[in-house]
Amino acid sequence: MKNQTRELENGFLEFTADQDFHFDAGGSINPLVLVYETYGTLNSDKSNAIVVHHALSTSSHLASTEKNTHTGWWEEMVGPGKALDTDQYFIICINNLGSCYGSSGPVSINPKTGKAYGPDFPTVTIADMVRSQKILVDALSISKLHAVLGSSMGGMLSVTWLVLYPDHANYLITISSCSRGYPANHANRLIQSEIIRHDAGFNNGYYSDSSKLEGFKTARKHGLLTYRNWAEINERFVDKFGMDSIDNYLDYNAQKFIDRFDCNSYLRLIGSMDSYDLSERGSKDLVDVYRPIQAKVLVVSVDSDILFPPAQQLCLHQAMLNGGVDANYVAHHSTYGHDAFLVETDEFGAYIQSFIGSAKT
Amino acid sequence: MKNQTRELENGFLEFTADQDFHFDAGGSINPLVLVYETYGTLNSDKSNAIVVHHALSTSSHLASTEKNTHTGWWEEMVGPGKALDTDQYFIICINNLGSCYGSSGPVSINPKTGKAYGPDFPTVTIADMVRSQKILVDALSISKLHAVLGSSMGGMLSVTWLVLYPDHANYLITISSCSRGYPANHANRLIQSEIIRHDAGFNNGYYSDSSKLEGFKTARKHGLLTYRNWAEINERFVDKFGMDSIDNYLDYNAQKFIDRFDCNSYLRLIGSMDSYDLSERGSKDLVDVYRPIQAKVLVVSVDSDILFPPAQQLCLHQAMLNGGVDANYVAHHSTYGHDAFLVETDEFGAYIQSFIGSAKT
Repeated sequence: MKNQTRELENGFLEFTADQDFHFDAGGSINPLVLVYETYGTLNSDKSNAIVVHHALSTSSHLASTEKNTHTGWWEEMVGPGKALDTDQYFIICINNLGSCYGSSGPVSINPKTGKAYGPDFPTVTIADMVRSQKILVDALSISKLHAVLGSSMGGMLSVTWLVLYPDHANYLITISSCSRGYPANHANRLIQSEIIRHDAGFNNGYYSDSSKLEGFKTARKHGLLTYRNWAEINERFVDKFGMDSIDNYLDYNAQKFIDRFDCNSYLRLIGSMDSYDLSERGSKDLVDVYRPIQAKVLVVSVDSDILFPPAQQLCLHQAMLNGGVDANYVAHHSTYGHDAFLVETDEFGAYIQSFIGSAKT
Repeated sequence: MKNQTRELENGFLEFTADQDFHFDAGGSINPLVLVYETYGTLNSDKSNAIVVHHALSTSSHLASTEKNTHTGWWEEMVGPGKALDTDQYFIICINNLGSCYGSSGPVSINPKTGKAYGPDFPTVTIADMVRSQKILVDALSISKLHAVLGSSMGGMLSVTWLVLYPDHANYLITISSCSRGYPANHANRLIQSEIIRHDAGFNNGYYSDSSKLEGFKTARKHGLLTYRNWAEINERFVDKFGMDSIDNYLDYNAQKFIDRFDCNSYLRLIGSMDSYDLSERGSKDLVDVYRPIQAKVLVVSVDSDILFPPAQQLCLHQAMLNGGVDANYVAHHSTYGHDAFLVETDEFGAYIQSFIGSAKT
């Protein structure tokens, strides 16, 4: 059997494609494994599927279910009558290739060695992730998605989906994302990567315990700082000391993260954002890249986002408009910076609902 | 002889106070050594002296002279007819205690061991630096400065000078500075300190060569990023690849820095900014702290500064006003962020000149 799907504990679905999956930057794996979750019911003509692309640090677990009562990363967004309305839509969220929540990645066992790939897992691009997900969506016999949507790194996947498969969705929503990484995005990732690599415990990726890597922890602290606007950080912590201090906040949250995330996966995923450039270092005009897109598009920016500032979403939106794409733009006001989509789910839910809901008119 | 001053190569002056200098956080050194430079001539009543406080990474070398033709860090600011007019003023710039440009610090020889202090040099506070400089200014028989001025960390020294010696200057100019570190300032320094400490080569400060410390280099890259607004970084590098890329810029400038700076000094100096808090963790009202200040004050902020944002200078200015201090405020518009005072010397020179020049009216 070429492809198979089995249900794991907690309702996770594990899709295994018994094929060589070739990576853009070289290397291949076999099998390709993708773990995913679904919410709602696929209708008879398979026209109500929405793929939600998750960001760097999250998983396929969008929201709690009967089988898995853990709170999801977009808990408020998914359910009957919610923005991602499970009475209407069949929501699919797939753990990104290279991540550490079940899909093929550095923590997967390399069948050739019987050991985890570790740092020998191939370099992953955003397009690799999208191509892998397309194999799964094809296997579900869904010939056209109702929508793809994602935030941050997930937003890069959503855009890339339509660039690779221009007529494969009715709607595209991309939040706090871009057409390509900007120098400051890249520099922040470069610094995180260096922090991790200089730590003696990292041992070129052949470490024994990701949760004990001091460099990884510091890199996460660095990341956490960039996800919020510093005005918000200052306001929140300016009169807090001891347990409530910024030190303690960063220490607690960074440790919580490295307790659950694999360091080699982290490097693969930030690397995928670094290589992400739909203009291919200026060799392609973004207007031409976007011109074939048939979907109706919504681009959302957050004014306080220091990591992916509105300039990047405006550039994305303008290139789409110039390419004749039906692209809309929301400039969201928030103090929460890059994290806003995780915090202000009421507002983001309203944007999604009114945009996708516009189909019915 | 209790104090002595000798001229070193290149016209640097080395002041040696043969006394125990006690640090706020414990520990002492003997002797206390301060390297400084002067520009212009002290007048007969010793009333025309201006102390310029340098920032984290610079030295006493404000500007080139006949004896030292190296370009100074504020070259355009100092000279006949310039903002810091050597025809009128006697300009003193003292290498900060704990730094590595001649004044006592981790690279100084500990007379008890015959070896460099290294990481065993005492913890330094901003107030320690100011107290050490007051010993030198007293030795010069200057009973009142015409002005103290500084930017960034130097601005903290200038403010602290007037807090410790409220009637010891006619003018105080503090640029891109604050009354206390804010959480985001602190968190960025915390991350730099961790990057340095996790690097195996650092060896708890007992390293053999500062210029080969990979962690120190990455920490400097991190610092460089915070000194500019990311919009400016993006605009400057967005279409630059290879030699002109942000990677190369950071690599070149970080290596250039660690080739000339000592890592233990760096840690002492960023630590001094971390402990800097004129409110003493909220136990003192800043209004009361500033009330005794007799000097006329100019507070300058830069709108694009992400490291020391205008909120911090506004807070400083307002507390001074509430304390009855004659405090003025300039909101400087720039794209250069925290580095603006090093780049836009014409504008900053004009602020300084018109403010100090107002004495004559």
